[in-house]
Amino acid sequence: MTINAPLNAHSSPLAVRQAARTGSLSGPTSGLASGYVQVNLVILPESQASGFLRFCQANPKPCPLLAVSEPGARHCHILGQDLDIARDVPEYRVYRDGQMRDTRTDVADVWREDLVTFALGCSFTFEHALMAAGLRIRHIDETRNVPMFKTSVPLTSAGGFGGNLVVSMRPFAAADAIRAIQITTRYPQVHGSPVHLGDPSLIGIHNLSSPDYGDAVSVGDHDIPVFWACGVTPQQVLIDSGVEFAITHSPGHMLVTDIPDNSLALF
Amino acid sequence: MTINAPLNAHSSPLAVRQAARTGSLSGPTSGLASGYVQVNLVILPESQASGFLRFCQANPKPCPLLAVSEPGARHCHILGQDLDIARDVPEYRVYRDGQMRDTRTDVADVWREDLVTFALGCSFTFEHALMAAGLRIRHIDETRNVPMFKTSVPLTSAGGFGGNLVVSMRPFAAADAIRAIQITTRYPQVHGSPVHLGDPSLIGIHNLSSPDYGDAVSVGDHDIPVFWACGVTPQQVLIDSGVEFAITHSPGHMLVTDIPDNSLALF
Repeated sequence: MTINAPLNAHSSPLAVRQAARTGSLSGPTSGLASGYVQVNLVILPESQASGFLRFCQANPKPCPLLAVSEPGARHCHILGQDLDIARDVPEYRVYRDGQMRDTRTDVADVWREDLVTFALGCSFTFEHALMAAGLRIRHIDETRNVPMFKTSVPLTSAGGFGGNLVVSMRPFAAADAIRAIQITTRYPQVHGSPVHLGDPSLIGIHNLSSPDYGDAVSVGDHDIPVFWACGVTPQQVLIDSGVEFAITHSPGHMLVTDIPDNSLALF
Repeated sequence: MTINAPLNAHSSPLAVRQAARTGSLSGPTSGLASGYVQVNLVILPESQASGFLRFCQANPKPCPLLAVSEPGARHCHILGQDLDIARDVPEYRVYRDGQMRDTRTDVADVWREDLVTFALGCSFTFEHALMAAGLRIRHIDETRNVPMFKTSVPLTSAGGFGGNLVVSMRPFAAADAIRAIQITTRYPQVHGSPVHLGDPSLIGIHNLSSPDYGDAVSVGDHDIPVFWACGVTPQQVLIDSGVEFAITHSPGHMLVTDIPDNSLALF
């Protein structure tokens, strides 16, 4: 008989992966296994993998590549021992012909021997660093998902992929915005420093209370909205580029790795 | 017969100091001996030196201490060989009883054996780093002095000194403001990262076109004003604190040292 302890910030990364693997975890991973890197996943047929690799290389802020698997491999030792790419994410999205067709908790039955997995850094890592420095993060205080917006900022097209940047937004008082820039600069592998701050209309965002993904948060008169490149960007790119077949995680339902957050800090 | 070559960015720090010493240079030092640290000077009787030292320690952003001389010494080896504190600044200000009474090109005749010299970092150093990174600095493009403003931000009182912060302002587009924060963070000994950005009224500045020191510069609709702690702060503090006797450099007329700008970068 297995006793499942409830998952929390103190759970090990492996405990979270095993819970997703056995089906006892199908919800978001925010707050679980604190201190360990969680990653965005993009899984593509090998025929498109080198194109997507070039696209990530050309757009490192939205697509910071932490690891790329061998074709067909469901393991990836850089990310963790005892890790099953096809089962350890609580919820997956499956895309066919440029449309998101399906969400599922396991993709073992649609796995293919030609699939290559791309693991991209996620802002959870820098949010931990911001909170460790005493900054308050609005969407966490308001127990919502981070607000994310499509922008008018074009990505660099490469390898058959292209589209516009998606950003996440966190409002801060000016002094905290400066501190947040300093701290996130230390983490280029999880989107790094912001891409914009201040007037949202300059990057094509016309209403901060209507995010394209995630939830709206309150923004005060003295707050400066600060915008970071977002890991949802490649999901939008897959749709815009009309890929024949792809798998990603569902937003917020990340793969939890054995990599310590602090190991990604530049200095 | 001595032939005085014209001073410029390629002049040595010693050549600039010797020109000030002999009286052939009495103007601002901006743009001279490029690549070498220029410093703000505050010269006080020893009776007030330990109080001022505590004040600088408590307010490191406006008063980043690079060196403190021995009482009466007109040399300071940290700043440079062949250096005369009483003659190597192109223009000095002399304060008595809390008022600026006199500007002069030489203070040898009012020098006292109890005077202690404080050398404070100057934003010229980080401006060089900003320009080296390709950023345009508005007041340099417009050949003006940087605009400086009194603020409502209180300093930490210590050692009998106190008052409000004075800031310098440089406008940037958002992406350049982010880059400027990253670059100036590397230089804590020359005021370091900004203290504020965005709405000037939040720090008590009500009109960007009317600086309290220096010159106004143009600020476009898409510019974000970015504010750094300023080395003029201690001059205002000397007046506000009513010191009996003090000497400083005149704004823009700095002491040029033998310290390379790059040696002050944190990383």
